[in-house]
Amino acid sequence: MNKGALALLVHGGTENWSPQRWKNRFDEVCGGRRVLQLPDAAFDPAEVHYAAVWKPHPGELAAFPNLRVIFNLGAGVDALMADKSLPDVPLVRVAVDDLTERMTEYIVLHVLMHHRQEPYLRESQRAKRWAPKSQWAAGAISVGVMGLGTLGAHAAKMLRHIGFRVAGWSRSPRQIDGIDCFAGAQQLQPFLRRTDILVCLLPLTPDTRHVLNRDLFAQLNRTSPMGAPVLINAGRGSLQNEADILQCLDDGTLGGASLDVYATEPLPSDSRFWTHPKVVLTPHNAADTDPDEISKYVAQQIERFEAGGALENVVDRKRGY
Amino acid sequence: MNKGALALLVHGGTENWSPQRWKNRFDEVCGGRRVLQLPDAAFDPAEVHYAAVWKPHPGELAAFPNLRVIFNLGAGVDALMADKSLPDVPLVRVAVDDLTERMTEYIVLHVLMHHRQEPYLRESQRAKRWAPKSQWAAGAISVGVMGLGTLGAHAAKMLRHIGFRVAGWSRSPRQIDGIDCFAGAQQLQPFLRRTDILVCLLPLTPDTRHVLNRDLFAQLNRTSPMGAPVLINAGRGSLQNEADILQCLDDGTLGGASLDVYATEPLPSDSRFWTHPKVVLTPHNAADTDPDEISKYVAQQIERFEAGGALENVVDRKRGY
Ligand SMILES: NC(=O)c1ccc[n+]([C@@H]2O[C@H](COP(=O)([O-])OP(=O)(O)OC[C@H]3O[C@@H](n4cnc5c(N)ncnc54)[C@H](OP(=O)(O)O)[C@@H]3O)[C@@H](O)[C@H]2O)c1
Ligand SMILES: NC(=O)c1ccc[n+]([C@@H]2O[C@H](COP(=O)([O-])OP(=O)(O)OC[C@H]3O[C@@H](n4cnc5c(N)ncnc54)[C@H](OP(=O)(O)O)[C@@H]3O)[C@@H](O)[C@H]2O)c1
Repeated sequence: MNKGALALLVHGGTENWSPQRWKNRFDEVCGGRRVLQLPDAAFDPAEVHYAAVWKPHPGELAAFPNLRVIFNLGAGVDALMADKSLPDVPLVRVAVDDLTERMTEYIVLHVLMHHRQEPYLRESQRAKRWAPKSQWAAGAISVGVMGLGTLGAHAAKMLRHIGFRVAGWSRSPRQIDGIDCFAGAQQLQPFLRRTDILVCLLPLTPDTRHVLNRDLFAQLNRTSPMGAPVLINAGRGSLQNEADILQCLDDGTLGGASLDVYATEPLPSDSRFWTHPKVVLTPHNAADTDPDEISKYVAQQIERFEAGGALENVVDRKRGY
Repeated sequence: MNKGALALLVHGGTENWSPQRWKNRFDEVCGGRRVLQLPDAAFDPAEVHYAAVWKPHPGELAAFPNLRVIFNLGAGVDALMADKSLPDVPLVRVAVDDLTERMTEYIVLHVLMHHRQEPYLRESQRAKRWAPKSQWAAGAISVGVMGLGTLGAHAAKMLRHIGFRVAGWSRSPRQIDGIDCFAGAQQLQPFLRRTDILVCLLPLTPDTRHVLNRDLFAQLNRTSPMGAPVLINAGRGSLQNEADILQCLDDGTLGGASLDVYATEPLPSDSRFWTHPKVVLTPHNAADTDPDEISKYVAQQIERFEAGGALENVVDRKRGY
């Protein structure tokens, strides 16, 4: 019997993520299974049992009558969940060490940049000004991580290891050694009140849309040793109210922000984020994962699934992540 | 019997390190011992048994006939060793967790800045250019740490924990879990050849002066995934040949440099380091340690010493560190 085919639907991404690169990788790891690179390939849609997707067009997945599993090639599934015609089969998201570790690099880097006053130091360099400023030890600074899933928990532990005081916030209660864990709407306020640097690694769902707004920023530690608290968002752009961020940076409610994600991507050239002196921005590349690792992860899951085993990291459609 | 006095000789430093701040701290921790803040205090030099110093003037310490121990308020003693009239009593340097952890923050920050292409990303932001570039995982990059003492060993372990491949180089052979250790002149070349990011945490001695020169840079990994290797020096300025660094940045032998220390400090305003696009500079503040921690450390050592115990972190005058 023929193995069901894997359809690749990859739109966008960096040079590292070209459709051809994915095709080559999947051909290597799928042990003879047919890998179809859409939209070009001539094929029978009924042949397709699996789809591996990155930003598929709405409706694109509904074309396969015998689809068994959808693999999203990234960690966040918010774009897929918005597709009302998405087939009702298990939807698997990425959770691989390579992605997790790269995100932790990004979070550690940006926490340290604000903690060690990099924006001030670069400005001093540009002005040829030798003007060391007193610094705080990491132990004097409280980092608060929103989202304690695969990514948030790993980043939180690394920040703790470096010496920061670390708290975390999630939907359901979590227990992580050395991290002060808060959960749910009723524990959001005490979590925020102690936080000097807020890191957001939440998924985008109906519950979390625009959670990063003025009301929330105003609850952060108002007596921070850093002066004003700092925001780092590497989750999704629609978690943030962008007008609120700019206003809060301008009026001192926030002392700085590192942003990797935006309501509209690429970030429009008229966005004030580009030129704001308190904003450190990156072009949605906090965790530019290696197709090698992800394609292996997908191939292994298919093998396990066909042998009757359970899929891992299946999205709960009701929760939305 | 009167306790011998402690003389404070503090010149220079940030606002955090004002002589008055040191005096207050030592008064608090020295349990009744007289703390003399020089040069102002009226006192009998014969009273002084201990001196705690930061950048004392050459000859200043020779004025105390009954000196028993000199405590340097920083980790590096190269400036003191240059004073030919330095009394022949034990010279103790600082090794406290607070300083070590702050230095590790600095090293991790600057390694990650180069690894994650921060100079490129800031330039893209200034140009309003959305242009994500492929990145390497930490495991693809080899960091080489010169100096595996209090500071170097701690930084090396943290970098390993973050996921980098890490090697270290010291005078005598060391063994550190997870770190590839090299020692002595004969193992310098294999250490350099595998190194993509070179971190220098050596002390300045006659042996190490200008060790960071063109000849050494040319031996770094010429097939680095980063393009060209990177230098980070937070040891001492005179470890580096500054003309060589500039030339190597210009001709591509080095791809970037983070410098905290300079041959002349403050860095003269006509130094090309200020404006070089590949240089990230900080004003000798990699580890701006808290006087609280250091004064406690000195007071404890004096107590132990007077109870007949051994001093810790005594400088070996022959080695020069
Ligand atoms: N910028 C980038 O390059 C990039 C790359 C990868 C991923 N991401 C983003 O990062 C997100 C997180 O990824 P992940 O793998 O860590 O996801 P995950 O393992 O599913 O973790 C999500 C975390 O968020 C918490 N959460 C969800 N809804 C919440 C709510 N309403 N209130 C409080 N907490 C809530 C969850 O709580 P529970 O623990 O109670 O379930 C969980 O701790 C992704 O969804 C994606 O958007 C960005
Ligand atoms: N930028 C700043 O703000 C700042 C702050 C504090 C300190 N520092 C600098 O950092 C330096 C290191 O401090 P530390 O506390 O880590 O010193 P340490 O504990 O004495 O360690 C020195 C390390 O360097 C190695 N070393 C010395 N001479 C060598 C040589 N000729 N060849 C190879 N290796 C050699 C030693 O080798 P062995 O292990 O074999 O002895 C040791 O591993 C200080 O001397 C100071 O200059 C800078």
